[in-house]
Amino acid sequence: MINIGIIGYGYWGPNLLRNFMELPDARVRIVADLDPKKRELVERRYPGVQTTSDVQSLFQDSEIDAIAVATPVNSHFELGMSALKAGKHLWLEKPMTETSLQARMLVNEADKRGLTLIVDHTFIYTGAVRKMREIVAAGDLGQIYYYDATRVNLGLFQKDVNVISDLAVHDFAIIDRLFEEHPTAVSASGINHFPGTPENLAYISLFYDSGMMAHINVSWLAPVKVRNILVGGSNKMITYDDLEPSEKVKVYDKGVSFTDDPAKIHEMRVGYRTGDMWAPKLDSTEALRIAGQEWIDCIIEKKVPTADGRLGLRVVEIIEAATSSMRGRGETVHLRRKDAA
Amino acid sequence: MINIGIIGYGYWGPNLLRNFMELPDARVRIVADLDPKKRELVERRYPGVQTTSDVQSLFQDSEIDAIAVATPVNSHFELGMSALKAGKHLWLEKPMTETSLQARMLVNEADKRGLTLIVDHTFIYTGAVRKMREIVAAGDLGQIYYYDATRVNLGLFQKDVNVISDLAVHDFAIIDRLFEEHPTAVSASGINHFPGTPENLAYISLFYDSGMMAHINVSWLAPVKVRNILVGGSNKMITYDDLEPSEKVKVYDKGVSFTDDPAKIHEMRVGYRTGDMWAPKLDSTEALRIAGQEWIDCIIEKKVPTADGRLGLRVVEIIEAATSSMRGRGETVHLRRKDAA
Amino acid sequence: MINIGIIGYGYWGPNLLRNFMELPDARVRIVADLDPKKRELVERRYPGVQTTSDVQSLFQDSEIDAIAVATPVNSHFELGMSALKAGKHLWLEKPMTETSLQARMLVNEADKRGLTLIVDHTFIYTGAVRKMREIVAAGDLGQIYYYDATRVNLGLFQKDVNVISDLAVHDFAIIDRLFEEHPTAVSASGINHFPGTPENLAYISLFYDSGMMAHINVSWLAPVKVRNILVGGSNKMITYDDLEPSEKVKVYDKGVSFTDDPAKIHEMRVGYRTGDMWAPKLDSTEALRIAGQEWIDCIIEKKVPTADGRLGLRVVEIIEAATSSMRGRGETVHLRRKDAA
Amino acid sequence: MINIGIIGYGYWGPNLLRNFMELPDARVRIVADLDPKKRELVERRYPGVQTTSDVQSLFQDSEIDAIAVATPVNSHFELGMSALKAGKHLWLEKPMTETSLQARMLVNEADKRGLTLIVDHTFIYTGAVRKMREIVAAGDLGQIYYYDATRVNLGLFQKDVNVISDLAVHDFAIIDRLFEEHPTAVSASGINHFPGTPENLAYISLFYDSGMMAHINVSWLAPVKVRNILVGGSNKMITYDDLEPSEKVKVYDKGVSFTDDPAKIHEMRVGYRTGDMWAPKLDSTEALRIAGQEWIDCIIEKKVPTADGRLGLRVVEIIEAATSSMRGRGETVHLRRKDAA
Repeated sequence: MINIGIIGYGYWGPNLLRNFMELPDARVRIVADLDPKKRELVERRYPGVQTTSDVQSLFQDSEIDAIAVATPVNSHFELGMSALKAGKHLWLEKPMTETSLQARMLVNEADKRGLTLIVDHTFIYTGAVRKMREIVAAGDLGQIYYYDATRVNLGLFQKDVNVISDLAVHDFAIIDRLFEEHPTAVSASGINHFPGTPENLAYISLFYDSGMMAHINVSWLAPVKVRNILVGGSNKMITYDDLEPSEKVKVYDKGVSFTDDPAKIHEMRVGYRTGDMWAPKLDSTEALRIAGQEWIDCIIEKKVPTADGRLGLRVVEIIEAATSSMRGRGETVHLRRKDAA
Repeated sequence: MINIGIIGYGYWGPNLLRNFMELPDARVRIVADLDPKKRELVERRYPGVQTTSDVQSLFQDSEIDAIAVATPVNSHFELGMSALKAGKHLWLEKPMTETSLQARMLVNEADKRGLTLIVDHTFIYTGAVRKMREIVAAGDLGQIYYYDATRVNLGLFQKDVNVISDLAVHDFAIIDRLFEEHPTAVSASGINHFPGTPENLAYISLFYDSGMMAHINVSWLAPVKVRNILVGGSNKMITYDDLEPSEKVKVYDKGVSFTDDPAKIHEMRVGYRTGDMWAPKLDSTEALRIAGQEWIDCIIEKKVPTADGRLGLRVVEIIEAATSSMRGRGETVHLRRKDAA
Repeated sequence: MINIGIIGYGYWGPNLLRNFMELPDARVRIVADLDPKKRELVERRYPGVQTTSDVQSLFQDSEIDAIAVATPVNSHFELGMSALKAGKHLWLEKPMTETSLQARMLVNEADKRGLTLIVDHTFIYTGAVRKMREIVAAGDLGQIYYYDATRVNLGLFQKDVNVISDLAVHDFAIIDRLFEEHPTAVSASGINHFPGTPENLAYISLFYDSGMMAHINVSWLAPVKVRNILVGGSNKMITYDDLEPSEKVKVYDKGVSFTDDPAKIHEMRVGYRTGDMWAPKLDSTEALRIAGQEWIDCIIEKKVPTADGRLGLRVVEIIEAATSSMRGRGETVHLRRKDAA
Repeated sequence: MINIGIIGYGYWGPNLLRNFMELPDARVRIVADLDPKKRELVERRYPGVQTTSDVQSLFQDSEIDAIAVATPVNSHFELGMSALKAGKHLWLEKPMTETSLQARMLVNEADKRGLTLIVDHTFIYTGAVRKMREIVAAGDLGQIYYYDATRVNLGLFQKDVNVISDLAVHDFAIIDRLFEEHPTAVSASGINHFPGTPENLAYISLFYDSGMMAHINVSWLAPVKVRNILVGGSNKMITYDDLEPSEKVKVYDKGVSFTDDPAKIHEMRVGYRTGDMWAPKLDSTEALRIAGQEWIDCIIEKKVPTADGRLGLRVVEIIEAATSSMRGRGETVHLRRKDAA
């Protein structure tokens, strides 16, 4: 039985608590939050769970095995490092940290101590992304040409992060999971329309050595909500519309093929095939439940979770590079190779 | 009565012929095409129209007042310049020319000779774009924050132009028409997946002095067709889905507003309003008919058409800059000011 | 402060409890359910609420002012009558009763005792239906021609009610609320594909003296979920798609108009106008909260709720007539006039 | 080479002419229409085709092998019978005739003379319906439970036919083709909102001995266009949305299954399976071309076409019965058995 402490009961904390409460091999012992109203909420809903305003007490509590941090990103590094140094397994909300240097230090600390570090990139645990990974891994798409995501809505402005950290972060993790390839360069553009606020719309292009290209369009200023991904391959293509209630993922038997018809020697030699479309059934288990279960399983069995600290670090590296490129109006920023982590 | 000669009866020429035949003050006298099969098509459908394989004969024919060029873009400059030098009014398919230098030379020649030069940016004559311009011009949107277009499909690959020239060209013209502002910088990325072919997908960011930003996503490799534009303003926002049969343009009474609630002094001061949506009725007259009529009217009344050579030139300048930036993986390319034309 | 007892904590009871708990002038004192697991759920979630397996104790409890019955329909009459006879105000789930005779007896009993009886036709309290009523009441549609609803899905089969009682019941209440007109005749057809089960799909036509006609298509056997209503009038028409996230209700400026052009004297004299579409902003307050609030307000202020027993009775009359017609393969069944209640 | 004469060049005649012109084994010799403007249209577009205002001349012309009748339905019987008596093969627009007696007489006359009679139920030649038939015929759906169609729009009012003849006629033919079963009873309701005009909306229920039930909702008074069919079976279900550009037909691996779990002995014993969805690629050949080719092939090879006179007759019988039931406000009308034709 793993005893868990949760730090932060704001927007996402309640989801962590609700899901962790259902895990058979874990128990949430305590929730820490500075706001007495938040603590009162916990007490009313879950009378068996203790609360505190003193974060330090969690680190010192020898009955706590694992700590989940669901606070604003600017406190992730300090709280996470304290937890690891106290010998606690660690769950960090995404993005993992503000800088890649911080992320790398957490990865190293967890490694050194043999602790399980997971980053809550919930999206890669959804039935949709797991199915897409299965299709990609089976080679059904052929050579991957592109990944193209649109993730816009009239959303709440974030105070401490720009729209890349808030929305594109999902795509950076999904791409990493689907293709296991790290971009080598990034070019981004974006804008903050309101002085003193972070960028509220951004367009990010990622370049990969395999020839794949990715593009992500994120905005907090759209009149309609869109959550859409296209993946194009030489044999098949995928669309993923997260707002579609029944058929989120569609696989198109459409690809590009070449012809050598001599009569067309001066013509473009690209032909098209069009075929069936197939919408696979998706597992609808709540993604956060699966992620929680994996964290506990990995702690017990000393395994590496899917969304481990290295994945979290790679995502932070892309956020960093994209933000830097965006502030240079699209100038190319090069990234280190994935295997050089 | 304006006598027209058409050069080129390939993909678009038949549309020109069909529409010009219906104009009350014009008459198509002759169609030139090198391919005898194309000429035969003209003869069968329109027995009263002559055909020829000799383009030069059109320039020398004193009975011809105006020439429409619907050939591949690499011949636009030479044919257009010959037409102007022969004193003919000129219709050029889009994009106007391969280079901005060529476009500028055509503009100057037409000016010098007092001839009417129009570029067939058909899209800006559609009921949808005319209605959007009306709404923008009335100031209903408030301050313009962004223009965001997606224009993708599994289309025919073009031999002589990349996807920017083929698809983004529409958006460059629409933006020019809607906002009458020329970008000052561009950052683009894109890729050609098939060696020896032009780029088949591209993402273009345009920066404007007013603070507006535009972004255009174009591709010939998408499994589904999308023709979508979002325009965001401080008071209202517009969506335009060209594939929607009955309600292409929707105006959302959604905007961003600021609050000065002192209790939120440390909070992001951005509020949201959400209100009604309104889908105005659009004129469904064929856009090409309207463009043709305007060309003839401008010739007769010596007026300047909406899609004049200067608009065509500005579009070519953006294509040039975007293609250059794309080949530099997003490096910023600066454009001259619009009023410096 | 109105003290409430709830009978039944199955599918809908939890929604009642959650909403009643938030009402400022009411308090849920006790929940009765035969199933100990259901009672345990109440105790865990709401420690301050008592539970019991003894329904009779609620009727005898003088501290309880009002009782909400959320049990299967076949117990509504007996429980409702007991509550009224014990002097309690009454909330009944829909449909109100199994027979119109039962409904009429409850209405009379509540009248005699001056108790507030409400039937939980939640749908008429939604922002969408309230907005539609506002539009209809303002006369914007002109003469009403038809109401046409499709309400299908691959749903759970009900044991004790057919698909008319389960799904068409919503439309019967909505029509009553929108047009305040009671049908004079009904013709229905339907089928049960599985021996021994109630009808799982049905098509109901309702005829009205005003010339309006209504049609409702309900099914538990559709592969996709549809919740769609069309209302056609001589001036405008409405569509209501309940699954549409942002624009559920659309008002079309489309109607039918007649011409007297003498040249068309032998032609059909019906012309069409097509105009703008308008999607009004809808209030998104939970409908059940509004209904709960209205019940309490009406108890305190001795007013008649919107979904009073008479509305509930009229709905049961239509269910009865439609079921009867369905079993006669569409034979016309006549209904009493509304004002003859 | 089959020589064809066409009677009627109104709404549909031009489509017949255009398609018949492309058939390799046929030639349109003459088009008859009373309106000189229509004849002029033919002459301008197809200089090689003769025209006439004298219908009788077609029957007397020994060079004409086959006649296509595209006039209003009230002239179908007289013109069709004259053509057959003159020994011409016959193409009739749908619906075949005004009455089933007329249809039966035409079938008998064609049989007696060994002439090929086809009725232009174009819809059953579409790629979508052919694919659906293939799926049904393969038994993939299991037992067929229902066919449910919605076919509404704000259309032109017909002078000489009601909305059943105009729109539901398609579904009667599609059902006949898909399931090869004739209904044994029909119940319909409908209304004409404008005095002196035919019914403009109608709802038709068809009952079949196999236990299948069909329902068709047709209207000329809807603010939006809908062309939608659902087919439900015990194993799979189909949706067909004719307005969907790329995926008209979807096959859902959803069905109903029963459980005998003893723990649920008092519960409804219906379970649900949900699985993949599959959208097969459809042949996009123009349906009218295929129908035309089949007519010519059947004339030459003395075979029976898919949409033969018997199918046309069965459709007229259903129109007749549905119209009769509609005027009786849903009273059940019984039909003869299919094999009693």
